[in-house]
Amino acid sequence: MSSFLSIDFQDDQLVLIDQTKLPLVEEYIKTDELERISVAIERLEVRGAPAIGITAAYAIALALKGVSCNVDEVFNSAYKRLASTRPTAVNLFWALDEMRSVFEANKNKPDIYGILLEAAKQIHQDDIEMCNAMGKNGLGIFEKKSNVLTHCNTGRLATGGEGTAFSVIKTGYENGLVKFVYSDETRPLLQGSRLTAFELAKNGIPFAMNTDSTAAVLMKEDKVDLVITGADRIAVNGDSANKIGTYNLAVLCKHHNIPFYITAPTTTIDLKIETGNKIKIEERGREEINQIKNVQVTRPEYDVYSPAFDVTPNELISGIITEKALHRPPYNFK
Amino acid sequence: MSSFLSIDFQDDQLVLIDQTKLPLVEEYIKTDELERISVAIERLEVRGAPAIGITAAYAIALALKGVSCNVDEVFNSAYKRLASTRPTAVNLFWALDEMRSVFEANKNKPDIYGILLEAAKQIHQDDIEMCNAMGKNGLGIFEKKSNVLTHCNTGRLATGGEGTAFSVIKTGYENGLVKFVYSDETRPLLQGSRLTAFELAKNGIPFAMNTDSTAAVLMKEDKVDLVITGADRIAVNGDSANKIGTYNLAVLCKHHNIPFYITAPTTTIDLKIETGNKIKIEERGREEINQIKNVQVTRPEYDVYSPAFDVTPNELISGIITEKALHRPPYNFK
Repeated sequence: MSSFLSIDFQDDQLVLIDQTKLPLVEEYIKTDELERISVAIERLEVRGAPAIGITAAYAIALALKGVSCNVDEVFNSAYKRLASTRPTAVNLFWALDEMRSVFEANKNKPDIYGILLEAAKQIHQDDIEMCNAMGKNGLGIFEKKSNVLTHCNTGRLATGGEGTAFSVIKTGYENGLVKFVYSDETRPLLQGSRLTAFELAKNGIPFAMNTDSTAAVLMKEDKVDLVITGADRIAVNGDSANKIGTYNLAVLCKHHNIPFYITAPTTTIDLKIETGNKIKIEERGREEINQIKNVQVTRPEYDVYSPAFDVTPNELISGIITEKALHRPPYNFK
Repeated sequence: MSSFLSIDFQDDQLVLIDQTKLPLVEEYIKTDELERISVAIERLEVRGAPAIGITAAYAIALALKGVSCNVDEVFNSAYKRLASTRPTAVNLFWALDEMRSVFEANKNKPDIYGILLEAAKQIHQDDIEMCNAMGKNGLGIFEKKSNVLTHCNTGRLATGGEGTAFSVIKTGYENGLVKFVYSDETRPLLQGSRLTAFELAKNGIPFAMNTDSTAAVLMKEDKVDLVITGADRIAVNGDSANKIGTYNLAVLCKHHNIPFYITAPTTTIDLKIETGNKIKIEERGREEINQIKNVQVTRPEYDVYSPAFDVTPNELISGIITEKALHRPPYNFK
């Protein structure tokens, strides 16, 4: 187990590590208040798709703690508040709707709080097991004790368990199959140097951080045996959207004849999307490029091109690891 | 002409733009004091190989202003002080040695200051003409009105004239051959978003900044027609060392079938080095990754891999533009 908590439930309260302060300060938020938890999601104190869903599930249960009348009203108001925190987060709505079905089936029972809390814990536990299964299925990608390069953050801070790509790295390390990890710093938001570095250090896995464009040199110098990243959305044909910079890595891997792997739960596969061309990419604002940690590095009026994600075509992906299997091309998730 | 000064000589004083404050503040240092100029080089208030050489040439002339006795002693002390500012800067020593030969040949003449000043102005003027020649020779790379991507800083702030790669971009723009420029921010030191963006804005060239790993997506989306960068050292066979991230771009260009060009004066070609394997690469310290503008973004104890430069093999380079010609492969600079 990692030597830090990310999401936990203790003394009838939710415990969240404050990710905005990491890795410089390790501080926890302990609360049973719906509003404080909602604000934590809004301020990105908790982030990562599965982590947000689990947090929302606990929050909606806590909203019903000690409530015995007007449960419908209280539930709906909590649902609405949580839904407003990150209106585009698919996992958030999935978790809220799971909680709604449990609520509807049990709302007349006296211990509705206990029932909802059990449901939230089950969502959390399912995520932990899914992470472990990805870690195990990922063992098949290591042909020898390997140096791995990864991008963005995919570990305990992003999920309820040990992560997606990070779970594969951690399980590989524990099985003597990972020697060293290179962590792309991951501009613009530096999830790699802030969060993944923290997870690697906490797990005692030897690592170094590098600027994103240094990955090419690492490959040229034979310092990387394989690359593993997560995914935000996967099309039926295996085309995968993930944090900006992932496609760059996949091209570099092809040039250097290095395998490139994606790790994500099957819930990431969007069966309505046949190919990556159909994935809409959000563009981010100027301030993520012209400021770093609120310090102005260049002029605010300079224009930027800053897509949040990119799409890696299936032909550049050596394998897609889910909780069910290590899938090899050609991919067809129908 | 660009609407800002970078290095100028006015009223018997040297004028330098303070590059450490750019682009947020446009402030000039005007001085005839050797010590102030030496400190400007040390603090990177002036940077860029040719710019440092020109600055040192002016500084050593100014050291002799009003001096009529002990000229040997004054010259040698100035030489020593300037040589200590950036002991690995090849161009600095080249300029200092040029000035030394002028000094040795004329040190007994009454107006040694005037003679040294003319020599410094000549070094500056030669650089301006070299930049213009590169710009002109580079026109041959544009097959149509093009979108260009560039990396790091190669313009007026780095040289005495309009730059190397930047001169090609500027000349192309003035000849209706450049439509739009993408400027890699260039981690870790952000020369692209701080300095190149400033030069582009001052020249009225339409541009956007992007994180380094976004270059791959720009190419995939057909937003880039060609890439031009500078070089720090070129081997006889054309292998080129340049700012970290350049090799990454060259690989991306090959994958997307986009031409990749290097621009540098012939003084950058090292005839003692046959291939790029012989180029020694400096590794930078942790603080450039864990701090940005003195703000701590991640923990100082985390290890980094941070080479200052990378080497692009000749087979990925579509052309090398010097002040003499647009060279096409196979390269042989012997």
